[in-house]
Parts: sequence; structure tokens; C-alpha cells
Amino acid sequence: MSAPVFLPPTSYDYVTIHKVQGEEITVASDVLAAEEPLEIRVGYGPTGQREHRTLSITMRTPGHDFELAAGFLFTEGIIRGRPDLQGIIYCPDVEKEDERENVVRAELAPTTAPDLPRLERHFYTSSSCGVCGKTSIEAVHAASCPVLPKNAPHVDPAVIHQLPERQRAAQALFEQTGGLHAAALFSPEGELLLLREDVGRHNALDKVIGAALFQEMLPLHNAILLVSGRASFELVQKAAVAGIPLMAAVGAPSSLAVQAAQNFGMTLCGFVRQGRYNVYCGQWRIRTTEET
Amino acid sequence: MSAPVFLPPTSYDYVTIHKVQGEEITVASDVLAAEEPLEIRVGYGPTGQREHRTLSITMRTPGHDFELAAGFLFTEGIIRGRPDLQGIIYCPDVEKEDERENVVRAELAPTTAPDLPRLERHFYTSSSCGVCGKTSIEAVHAASCPVLPKNAPHVDPAVIHQLPERQRAAQALFEQTGGLHAAALFSPEGELLLLREDVGRHNALDKVIGAALFQEMLPLHNAILLVSGRASFELVQKAAVAGIPLMAAVGAPSSLAVQAAQNFGMTLCGFVRQGRYNVYCGQWRIRTTEET
Repeated sequence: MSAPVFLPPTSYDYVTIHKVQGEEITVASDVLAAEEPLEIRVGYGPTGQREHRTLSITMRTPGHDFELAAGFLFTEGIIRGRPDLQGIIYCPDVEKEDERENVVRAELAPTTAPDLPRLERHFYTSSSCGVCGKTSIEAVHAASCPVLPKNAPHVDPAVIHQLPERQRAAQALFEQTGGLHAAALFSPEGELLLLREDVGRHNALDKVIGAALFQEMLPLHNAILLVSGRASFELVQKAAVAGIPLMAAVGAPSSLAVQAAQNFGMTLCGFVRQGRYNVYCGQWRIRTTEET
Repeated sequence: MSAPVFLPPTSYDYVTIHKVQGEEITVASDVLAAEEPLEIRVGYGPTGQREHRTLSITMRTPGHDFELAAGFLFTEGIIRGRPDLQGIIYCPDVEKEDERENVVRAELAPTTAPDLPRLERHFYTSSSCGVCGKTSIEAVHAASCPVLPKNAPHVDPAVIHQLPERQRAAQALFEQTGGLHAAALFSPEGELLLLREDVGRHNALDKVIGAALFQEMLPLHNAILLVSGRASFELVQKAAVAGIPLMAAVGAPSSLAVQAAQNFGMTLCGFVRQGRYNVYCGQWRIRTTEET
């Protein structure tokens, strides 16, 4: 007889539902995106004097959890890049086995001195936006954000038009569940580089940035980002930290998202759908018809 | 000469954009939803020994800030209802005048003993979901959630079909900006009772529940809730705390949202659009054709 097989949590689940169409009601089977809490802990300090802290609890779709943790730590400024990470594990200290897959621990390199006040700030806020501890646009100005490449990439307007269709084609889980956000990185020519999905918009972006970190692709100076929903301040900020010079959203941006993109020198496009889009700032990265 | 007029922050802002349609690029003016951080502080303790704490920082669309704070405190279990609230003000301790409108302070009644461990938990998490301090579905089971009315309301299937159109018609800000979430309460006959908008889904729900709290409408045992986006665990949980027995979403639910709704005995509908919807649980609150 074979040994039992341990199966990790899946990103989706089955339910029996009642479908209502007009007045007709039928029973059917359906697939839903999974949503589970993920607790992100960090271990830090010199060997022999390690300390551990809970940094964040976020509702996420299971899958790519280590990328999510790495992306979160990077975009929140806790780590500067791969060298600051010694490893990421499902936390062995969690007693209940079925809760262990919902707690990841990132071990920072012993030589890494994490920004403790920044860690502290995470304890003082329960932000619904990920802009933990930053109370205003002024905090963004003060943040030591990487400088984006000034004039590159130079993108053909047609490339932007194609992004949503290419993203959707690659969204395996969305096809099944109809309920997931996606963040995708493309080359300036519109070639898909990386795509991640999650019930939370910022989680999808953290996962894709974490994946880029693992693959030594940071900073993403030559990439275009497409997000499936709206462009919030927080998403613009995370993209800027990762060095992304051009961000496009299927939905609308907020006014603060546009302000932040302007401050970072980022190109921000919104409402990218059905052969149209708006460029809110950084128009110079989009080729005009004369240039093409 | 008249005295100068102080104008509170608006919920939207103007920007100049480049509109791209196919290959054509034109310059235009556009309206965006505003997004600003809101810090929620609480004051508590007996007169003469008051203490103050920051509970949460959330990115929100300015407007209905006191409702947002009240709804957040109520759905997070910090207050039990209106009697626990002495008042809510824009925090006068904030030095910079232009930052004052982004900090509200809720003064709890001196006789109110807030659940301090629960307050503490808010310091330990920076949740992107509002489920601050709750690390698993088990925590939900343990929470002392109000019991929903078992068989009421009994709703005609046609009422559910009409909700999105009625919500959209009342969404003033969405019309202008194309970028806002909404939460709306309806009577079992589909009459709109309350609607609030925000860049954040849970903020829109907190605002509508806070408004209901101010209007002494809680618990909302005879109301239907429609949310504009997906149905997450967190939204289901907030709705349950407010006593809402039927929740409908224009988008998809997550698997945990369905589990939570089942546990609360709530009716959960999803994908309510174009004459169709799915009932994920609590089907008995929807009338069958024979009953109508």
C-alpha cells in the first residue's frame, strides 16, 4: 500500500447552489475562489537572539503564499531585496496542523537590520489599504522610493489596448470562479511575463512582485503592470516601490492614485477596455501616432 | 464683505487626461473619486481618566466620515450600539488644519467598558480585510454574533433582480467617476432605504451600517443588503453583526463568504445581474414560483 499523500490547500472550492434565471430556479454545482486568512510573521535579529513578530493578517486566496509574503515585505519596505530574506516557511510553531498553512514566517538574514519603527507602525494600524502607518500623501513624498526610469519604456498605444484580453486569457482561476482579481506584468511589447490571482487586489500585486523578487527581476524598470480592478493609491505605491514605470487598470483610478503616480513620475492608464483608455499622467511614455 | 466660507473636503476631484480611442489621442477633463486616509481614534474611560488610541487607518472617499467610524466600531464589536457612543468629532488635537479632516475621534460613553483585548488585537494586525485579529473561521464561530431572524424576510425573486438597477440609479458619485463601490439597504419589497459609496467596499458597508446606527435602525432584521462588488468573508461578517438576513452581491462570493453566511443562517446571493443570480445558501428566504 502506498503512503498517504498530503495535499496542500487549493485555490478553489465546490458548492451546491440555486440558480435563478428570471423566475426559474434550478439546483447546480458551482466553483468558488477560496478565501483564507494568511498571517505573515517575521523572524529577525542575530543568530542566537532571534525575535519573532506578527506583521499582518490578510484574507487571501491560498496559493503562492511565499510570494505573497515576500512581495508584501518588499513593497512595505521591510526588506530591500532577496539578500535580506533567509527563507520563508509555513510556521512550524503553529500547533493545529490545519492552521499551519495559514501562517508563514519570513526569516530575515541575521545581518539585516529591519526598520523597527516601520515594523512598529504595522502594530498601530489595521489598514484596509495596505498603506500601513502612512497617514497622508506627505508620508509618500518622504518615503525613499526608487526612482523610475525617466523616459523608458516607450510603448505603442496598441500594446495597452491588448493587455486586458491577454490577462484574461491567462487567468485560469477567474475562468472557473468569475471572482478573482489579477495583477500581470508584461514586456513593453505586450508579452505576458507573470500573472497572479487573488480575492484581494493588493495580494495579487504582492504575489506578482514577490514572484519577480524570487526570479531576480527587480527593479521592474522595463515592465508594464495591468491590474484587473481600480487603481488605488496603495497599488500605485506598491508598483512604484517595485520600480514599475507604467501601470494600467481596467477600472478607474482615485484622485490620490493619480497624485501619487505624478509624484513618482509613473505613467498611469485607467478604464483600459473596449479599444479605449485614459492616460492620467506620464503620457510621454505612450508613443504618438507620428512616432509610430 | 462676507466672512470666508470653510468648505469641507469633497468626494471627487478634477484632472486633465489624455483619452486614447483606438489610435486617436485627445486631451480632456475628467472627474475622479477622491481617496484620503482616515484615522479612527477612540476615547474611553471614566471622566477625568480618559485614554485615547488609534484603532485604524483606512483609505476612504471623504464624506460620511462619522458614519464610517461608527459603523466600523459597531461591526468590529468595539461598541454595542448608539448608547456606547458619546460623540464623534474631527480630532482637535491634530496640529495641521488640513490633516484634521482625516482624523476622527469617537468618544465612548464613560460608562462603556470597551473590550480591551479586542482593541489590542487591532494593534497586532494590519489586515487588508477588516477581520482584524481574527485569524480563522473558528474565530467567527466563537464570536457572539447576533442571531438572524430565522424565516424572515420572505422575498420575491423578482425583487432581487431589480436591486442593481435601483442601486446604480441612486449612485450619484459613480455616475461621475465610474470608480466607486456602493452598499445599499433595501426593504423586502425592494424599496431603497440607504446607500453609501466609497473607494473601499468595506468602507461603503461601514458607512451604511453607521448611518443605520445613527437612525436607530439596528438590528437590520428586515433589510436586504446589496454590495456592488464581490462578497467577501469580511462583508458577510459585518452584515451579520448588523443583523442583515439577506445579502446580495453583483460579483462572486468567496468560499469562506459562503461558509460564514451558512454559519450565520444568512441568505447569500451572488452574480446578481442581467436577470440572473445564484443563491449560495438560505434559499428558503426566496419565494418559489408556487408561493408567489
